[in-house]
Amino acid sequence: MEIIQSPQNKQIKEWKKLSSKKGRLNQRLYMLDGWHLVKEAIRANENIQRFLIVPDSRYVDEFNELNSTKAEITYISSEVAHALSETISPQGIFAIMMTNESRSMLPSNLSGAWLLLDGVQDPGNIGTMIRTADAAGFRGVVFGNGTGDLYQPKVVRSMQGSQFHLELLQVDLTLFIAELKKKKIPTFGTELNKDAKSYDEIGKYTDFGLIMGNEGNGVQPEHLKMTRHNLYIPIIGKAESLNVAVAAGILMYTLKK
Amino acid sequence: MEIIQSPQNKQIKEWKKLSSKKGRLNQRLYMLDGWHLVKEAIRANENIQRFLIVPDSRYVDEFNELNSTKAEITYISSEVAHALSETISPQGIFAIMMTNESRSMLPSNLSGAWLLLDGVQDPGNIGTMIRTADAAGFRGVVFGNGTGDLYQPKVVRSMQGSQFHLELLQVDLTLFIAELKKKKIPTFGTELNKDAKSYDEIGKYTDFGLIMGNEGNGVQPEHLKMTRHNLYIPIIGKAESLNVAVAAGILMYTLKK
Repeated sequence: MEIIQSPQNKQIKEWKKLSSKKGRLNQRLYMLDGWHLVKEAIRANENIQRFLIVPDSRYVDEFNELNSTKAEITYISSEVAHALSETISPQGIFAIMMTNESRSMLPSNLSGAWLLLDGVQDPGNIGTMIRTADAAGFRGVVFGNGTGDLYQPKVVRSMQGSQFHLELLQVDLTLFIAELKKKKIPTFGTELNKDAKSYDEIGKYTDFGLIMGNEGNGVQPEHLKMTRHNLYIPIIGKAESLNVAVAAGILMYTLKK
Repeated sequence: MEIIQSPQNKQIKEWKKLSSKKGRLNQRLYMLDGWHLVKEAIRANENIQRFLIVPDSRYVDEFNELNSTKAEITYISSEVAHALSETISPQGIFAIMMTNESRSMLPSNLSGAWLLLDGVQDPGNIGTMIRTADAAGFRGVVFGNGTGDLYQPKVVRSMQGSQFHLELLQVDLTLFIAELKKKKIPTFGTELNKDAKSYDEIGKYTDFGLIMGNEGNGVQPEHLKMTRHNLYIPIIGKAESLNVAVAAGILMYTLKK
């Protein structure tokens, strides 16, 4: 068995570059780190380019049992695993994944529930919202302009494999909301404004869009003008606002039929 | 005006130690970093020991206008601010705060809504849940054994000043739940188990306890046995679970009358 021993190995250095946006764009790849995420990729059986495995990782047996994909396996040393991982104790199992290049296509059928991200920046928030959209039975998440990159390591970590369960699109939100409108599907905006409607007063829906905005500035005014209703979650105590991922969770579970 | 110029200054080194749990326990102090948090402390006007300010911070005018507390002010250089801060671009305004030493006392009147943290570990989750409890109009948050430290920097950052709006207690949860029970106040547990009741089927309450558990292991079985009901949030898609802070947000807003 050939094992790549050195973090200075040329190919390892290339994979290491996948932690930067530039590296991911150049190579059209991203990385999954750890058995939980790799398992989700194997179950989905799509877009896997290669597995990287430390031969004495405690997950090797589980991996061999579950893996029925045809992706190649490269063995690496524990030192290389530490160089590739952003965690302190890497599990010694990675997957190199192909990024999805067809994300900017607008589906012809827009039924189902869509979460629209309007300039959301924090990768933990983005990943958590995708995970929640998955749990709540949404069809997909649309990354509007100014929203953070889907494939950055912290997003990948916090979405916990939900990229394999949802349609993740990169489409201008003005265009997307207009398309929903054309098909008579309502879009709901969110604002911190009591002139908006309380989130629990508009009922439940099967087909709709829900826009969540930037952590500091909220949803862009031009998008708020295109919605059927703009919603707020009442603040009963003295906090100034809710974390955007928490607010998204409350709204998704309340609005989804 | 005297300005502490060097990060090597003895007092600065002491304050720097407040980023560790040991330092906070020894000195009974913790630190607020940035104008948003300092503003909340001034509004609450309690437990402030001292302000640390870079004289040319852009927040100095706002600070002078708002500050009516009697806490002392120490001026520091921008270099010192960088040494004290965990952020890349510190705002040059800090407060040294006294930790609350009476947190382990059980209030005699337990009315209102309480969030009980049972071994929650991630500081971002803890802080976000406290912020949400504040927004939802909860009375307090109880830190059970094994839950992360309230005053660690990431908790302080993500709770955004809600420590000034809520009662934050450190009490054994078995004791706390038993006290609620004695007063006929229901406690609800949470589990990832469809034998539990769906969260939206038990109505709304004014006085109650809600237990959220550890990220990996959930609520301790001994606590689940003491509750009136154990609740779950249905997973409609393929995600394995919800982030604990998102789940807490959905539950707090659904259960609180």
